[in-house]
Amino acid sequence: MEPRRSVFFVSDRTGITVEILGNSLLTQFEEVSFRRVTLPFIQSRHDLQNAIDQINRAVEEEQQKPIVFLSIVDDDINCEMREKANALMLDFFQPFILPLEKELGVKSSHAAGRSHSVNYDYFRRMEAINFTQMHDDGATTRDLAGAEVILIGVSRCGKTPTSLYLALQFGIRAANFPLTPDDFSSHKLPDSLLPFRHKLFGLTIDPKRLSQIRQERRAGSHYASLENCRQEVRSAEALMEREKIPTLDTTAKSIEEIATTIIHQAKLKRHFD
Amino acid sequence: MEPRRSVFFVSDRTGITVEILGNSLLTQFEEVSFRRVTLPFIQSRHDLQNAIDQINRAVEEEQQKPIVFLSIVDDDINCEMREKANALMLDFFQPFILPLEKELGVKSSHAAGRSHSVNYDYFRRMEAINFTQMHDDGATTRDLAGAEVILIGVSRCGKTPTSLYLALQFGIRAANFPLTPDDFSSHKLPDSLLPFRHKLFGLTIDPKRLSQIRQERRAGSHYASLENCRQEVRSAEALMEREKIPTLDTTAKSIEEIATTIIHQAKLKRHFD
Repeated sequence: MEPRRSVFFVSDRTGITVEILGNSLLTQFEEVSFRRVTLPFIQSRHDLQNAIDQINRAVEEEQQKPIVFLSIVDDDINCEMREKANALMLDFFQPFILPLEKELGVKSSHAAGRSHSVNYDYFRRMEAINFTQMHDDGATTRDLAGAEVILIGVSRCGKTPTSLYLALQFGIRAANFPLTPDDFSSHKLPDSLLPFRHKLFGLTIDPKRLSQIRQERRAGSHYASLENCRQEVRSAEALMEREKIPTLDTTAKSIEEIATTIIHQAKLKRHFD
Repeated sequence: MEPRRSVFFVSDRTGITVEILGNSLLTQFEEVSFRRVTLPFIQSRHDLQNAIDQINRAVEEEQQKPIVFLSIVDDDINCEMREKANALMLDFFQPFILPLEKELGVKSSHAAGRSHSVNYDYFRRMEAINFTQMHDDGATTRDLAGAEVILIGVSRCGKTPTSLYLALQFGIRAANFPLTPDDFSSHKLPDSLLPFRHKLFGLTIDPKRLSQIRQERRAGSHYASLENCRQEVRSAEALMEREKIPTLDTTAKSIEEIATTIIHQAKLKRHFD
């Protein structure tokens, strides 16, 4: 068997992007076993030397070249990394700068990029998070008019994590509201939601998966039983269809996929680019 | 003045990564004005044709080439996009596949990558989000032993968004606990935190910025006054220093930077790669 291959994600900032992108490349090589190390905030000569040492140590220990996914804006640090680290260097930044300079007809600033206005983003996100936390799980119907989207669906179908993700990642004020057996027996939407029908977005889920999720919470309960989950999902889907509310099945989707699909389908304005 | 330049982020998945990476490149060209369009979930021929049409329409309208940041795993769709769209094509995926295949000595699967196990991630994240919401702002001290990290600091210094980000993005169970004037007058940590000192991580903030944030919430209050913010921050910092709690200044940092720095400094285990 091949020994594990070390992979380093090296960035002058958080490294989150480099990791995501690098990992999506690595999923193309499922038969290889990787050891992953993230080295964020590589900004000084001293950080750089540490990183190079770690990478070169892996070469010795594993008798093969590590993979380095790199995102460093500073030219000197970038060059030195390329020269001194013995690795397959995959650079997510530098190779794109020259074509951009040529096409745009201007020189790049070569400044370690900070994403736009930290201040503006921060206020907007804080405000969205406050709103979303306050309007989680139908906790209040006050100020629902301030919501940009209101997610509805049965308990545990993914409303809370999706709302929080929309707020945190995109600054979107996302409320969420459970559909309960009461709503199903009356065959209509909760009264408090009626003025905001145009903002409603439904989430649904495979009953088997829902039951599995609910079992984690309340094992053996009627609430978690497959029978009950089937019935709740069927009633919720019928209600949402009758009310012509756009609906998304969350079953096999990650939180990122659910959130992005909602933004796309509901044409929500994202507050950060 | 140059007309605005259209930028397209084209992905077969959510497009979030392509946007972040593309935007960090664009920050290098501050004098150019960009119009940004994200085209996520480009998976079929039909989606592809729509995307190509939009891009080529921009060429006509703006009389200049758009920039396209691309991440498409499927070879055919990728090729056709490159052939038929008249744009500067910056591909975050394909150029890295060949070097990886060569270095690893295996062929890539060319399958649209899904990040590992959606199921595992989902449970872990849900569980972390539940925990974090339950332990927001010191709401309960029950099960605090289950926290992987406990953020402390004065009200509005960034504890809540950071905790939620740690939970959502990395599946880390992050509690947070406010430091209040009561704690400052007793010159000690809240009793309920004492058993978990080794899990504490302090956040601090510039008093001017804190006052600005609090004014957004309660304008004109004593709570938001610069005078009071100065005193609270000074007392909190003194307390955390005396108790030898690692501390991070959040003032000029984004939520991502704060979260990643904490993971790094507190050596937290991240649950997703």
